[in-house]
Amino acid sequence: MAMAMWGRQFMGARSQLRRSTLALASQQRGFAGHAARRPFAAWDEQDVAHFRQVLRPESVLTDLEDTASYTCDWLKKYKTYSDRQLVLRPKTTEEVSAVLKYCNDRNLAVVPQGGNTGLVGGSVPVHDEIVLSLSSMNKVISFDNVSGVLVCESGCILENLDNHVAKEGYMMPLDLGAKGTCQIGGNLSTNAGGLRLLRYGSLHGSVLGVEAVLADGTVIDCLSTMRKDNTGFDLKQLFIGSEGTLGVITKVSILTPPRSSSVNVAMLGCQDFGAVQRAFVEAKKHLGEVLSAVEFLDRESLDMVLSQQDWHKDPLETNCPFYVLIETSGSNENHDMEKLEAFLESTMESGIVTDGTVAQDAAQAKKLFMIREDITVALSMRGTVYKYDVSLPMDQYYKIVEETRERMEPLGAQVVGYGHLGDCNLHLNISTLEHDDKVFNALEPYVFEWTSKYRGSISAEHGIGTHKPSYLHLSKSANAINLMRQMKQMLDPKGILNPYKVIPDN
Amino acid sequence: MAMAMWGRQFMGARSQLRRSTLALASQQRGFAGHAARRPFAAWDEQDVAHFRQVLRPESVLTDLEDTASYTCDWLKKYKTYSDRQLVLRPKTTEEVSAVLKYCNDRNLAVVPQGGNTGLVGGSVPVHDEIVLSLSSMNKVISFDNVSGVLVCESGCILENLDNHVAKEGYMMPLDLGAKGTCQIGGNLSTNAGGLRLLRYGSLHGSVLGVEAVLADGTVIDCLSTMRKDNTGFDLKQLFIGSEGTLGVITKVSILTPPRSSSVNVAMLGCQDFGAVQRAFVEAKKHLGEVLSAVEFLDRESLDMVLSQQDWHKDPLETNCPFYVLIETSGSNENHDMEKLEAFLESTMESGIVTDGTVAQDAAQAKKLFMIREDITVALSMRGTVYKYDVSLPMDQYYKIVEETRERMEPLGAQVVGYGHLGDCNLHLNISTLEHDDKVFNALEPYVFEWTSKYRGSISAEHGIGTHKPSYLHLSKSANAINLMRQMKQMLDPKGILNPYKVIPDN
Repeated sequence: MAMAMWGRQFMGARSQLRRSTLALASQQRGFAGHAARRPFAAWDEQDVAHFRQVLRPESVLTDLEDTASYTCDWLKKYKTYSDRQLVLRPKTTEEVSAVLKYCNDRNLAVVPQGGNTGLVGGSVPVHDEIVLSLSSMNKVISFDNVSGVLVCESGCILENLDNHVAKEGYMMPLDLGAKGTCQIGGNLSTNAGGLRLLRYGSLHGSVLGVEAVLADGTVIDCLSTMRKDNTGFDLKQLFIGSEGTLGVITKVSILTPPRSSSVNVAMLGCQDFGAVQRAFVEAKKHLGEVLSAVEFLDRESLDMVLSQQDWHKDPLETNCPFYVLIETSGSNENHDMEKLEAFLESTMESGIVTDGTVAQDAAQAKKLFMIREDITVALSMRGTVYKYDVSLPMDQYYKIVEETRERMEPLGAQVVGYGHLGDCNLHLNISTLEHDDKVFNALEPYVFEWTSKYRGSISAEHGIGTHKPSYLHLSKSANAINLMRQMKQMLDPKGILNPYKVIPDN
Repeated sequence: MAMAMWGRQFMGARSQLRRSTLALASQQRGFAGHAARRPFAAWDEQDVAHFRQVLRPESVLTDLEDTASYTCDWLKKYKTYSDRQLVLRPKTTEEVSAVLKYCNDRNLAVVPQGGNTGLVGGSVPVHDEIVLSLSSMNKVISFDNVSGVLVCESGCILENLDNHVAKEGYMMPLDLGAKGTCQIGGNLSTNAGGLRLLRYGSLHGSVLGVEAVLADGTVIDCLSTMRKDNTGFDLKQLFIGSEGTLGVITKVSILTPPRSSSVNVAMLGCQDFGAVQRAFVEAKKHLGEVLSAVEFLDRESLDMVLSQQDWHKDPLETNCPFYVLIETSGSNENHDMEKLEAFLESTMESGIVTDGTVAQDAAQAKKLFMIREDITVALSMRGTVYKYDVSLPMDQYYKIVEETRERMEPLGAQVVGYGHLGDCNLHLNISTLEHDDKVFNALEPYVFEWTSKYRGSISAEHGIGTHKPSYLHLSKSANAINLMRQMKQMLDPKGILNPYKVIPDN
């Protein structure tokens, strides 16, 4: 095994690429087969004047130049169909409540919005819905450095929160590529997963409390800071993962784990997917409690990064068909390294792993993970990308990539597979130079039906948004969808909150 | 520090004591201020005949000798007021569905029941509600030894499941004193906490899927086995912690963590509660990812165990006012022991810990934890026990014990405090030789109001049941309780599921 010490890196290039992504991803598809406008009222100048009075004037945006970034997603795939745009930026829960009560009374539709980094159109208005941006509610309320409990407003940016608690030796229990832009309220609303879920679990477990405002302006204060609180129904769960269709999260109480003083990252090469699976099982066995991430990418994903960006050099000495990124996080560097070495020795001796490298410091570790994160960026730069985010049983995890690749070959589309292997979460991405309806039609509903056949999830972490309501039945039973409709009817009888999203039309 | 090697132990005595508890705890209080019977239909012989046909005849119990253990809790505190008792033991989801549909149509009230080990009367009929026992649905459906996902019926006993997955190197993510009797469905319905919550989080995070039957017989299949599944509302959360008032859980899919090969237990003595808090912070720092439990007991709790049971000998050489039990679980014995020694050295040098002992093997570790578990048994043996289970901010955690002790002294009641320190969960228990209304009246609502003042939880892990609906407003806002009522109305419009529990009367 070559522990290739992979020196040269290109830090500057990356943020530049991030910026250029927006400019390059020019194939706007908007909302495929978008829903017809429902009979909500249309906001008028009187409403705008009212909002200017209830909020501060600067919290009410109507100028198209000001509103543009709120009414289109960052990949420019989802964009409002209306040229009338209204964005409100309340500063307090009381303001959110007043806005919603007014909108509910007036029958005006509303799209709650966090950092607008979603991938399924959930935070973008389809028609002339009013955007309710939480970005001005960005204060940390308290942090308890004995219990590790953070209480903050929902507009706080994830990375800022992580930096805040880092000062006291703690870390946020979630981490994702969009951390510099996404907001904690949006993370909760979409039940964001990301890199740390393997170790720290889902937000349904780590969130201790929520304050949320219902469609009619009612404030539900369940902002407990207690880790154990069995006092009646766990109402906060209603708002976690419902994509802003049942209420608007205004405050969050969340348990943060101690920050690990020692972090190691290794990139391993495997010759077949069976070996990838065995590497995962061995990692759980040898690394136990210090294992914090198991990420996967295929050679095609790596090639995509190498071809589109300044990463000219293979991270490993040999060219492997499959790669596994392993991260350990622990409290004792010697112990962690000893465990990692035992794992590497065992997997190399048995031939599970044929090549690999271990980062020698934090900077190298970051760079190895950047390959993984830059797959998304590289795909966007190349042209059009069709993104699928599924969970599948381990035996089917890579089979879907192979079968989709075979299906796409005659159409000249490139297929890459990567994702959070440790959570059985695969990102299946298909790339073409330009948007191609033939490719799109060959993918949908094919990918969703394939996933459904194996009782996988058609949306592992990205959510449903406007992209997948019509496929929801492939992952949810008719009774379950019916119960969702009942819940929506109960909490938002006029349907003003994030319409056209998540719940399929009857 | 004396590493007292604490040899003699009394294994046999314990199970004997467990049995005698039931006989000795004779002060039946029943449901304090119990609710008047609501206008449900009363089941008759025709109904019994119907159930004998739908289920097998042996699944329908009416004989008072057969039904007695289903209609009274194990501490004999809660017991039905009716002398008409009917217990049904369906074997399949279809049978549960048929029973509920029939009961809903007939307006017959139903109490879903697991192992009946709860402490707040949630699983016992108040009047003549039909007991729907899940104990015959006790099959393991599948276990995936790569992902660690277990799927089983809800009547499986927790300890049996733990033994089942142990064979493959995994463990259940929860552990509690009642593990030999309690059922996984009941664990979910009550959102059971217990000893492993500190490390493995709550069931809201570790449960991946649920199949449940609504009051009208509708089966909601959300039995996903995927760790990430963001496809619409997370419906399974409705049934976790709602104490059987919104639906009956019939199947469970749960993520089990790898079983730790190395487990260490230390019992530490501290001189004041400030030192206890510092010991907890130091434990998080030094033990990091291997820390798996931080339990607390005061001297009075230990004395209770020593006086009532065959534990004649102090576990430590010196008599300390406060004790902390620390458990580590990890994958490498040498590493874990090194961390533990560093922790002990640092806390002893700084005077945080003044005495202590480390278990030398699994048997000793079990015995140390038995002291903690036997507090409950000893209290029951002594006479009447008034049990409170609260969460409080760390600064108030022990203050409530001191103030309650002062308040109870003139009444001759003994006050002990112990619990899951790592989760801020305190078990405040008050003991008298016989039931005493003056003691009871001095405790309620005092304890709940005290807890509410500091934004604690009046029920950390035991739930609300019939004991606390009238105090729910001390931990939940009026809007939140109103929302609970709406949810109940939506899912169970006739209110047949577990009436008189959880939700306060209007």
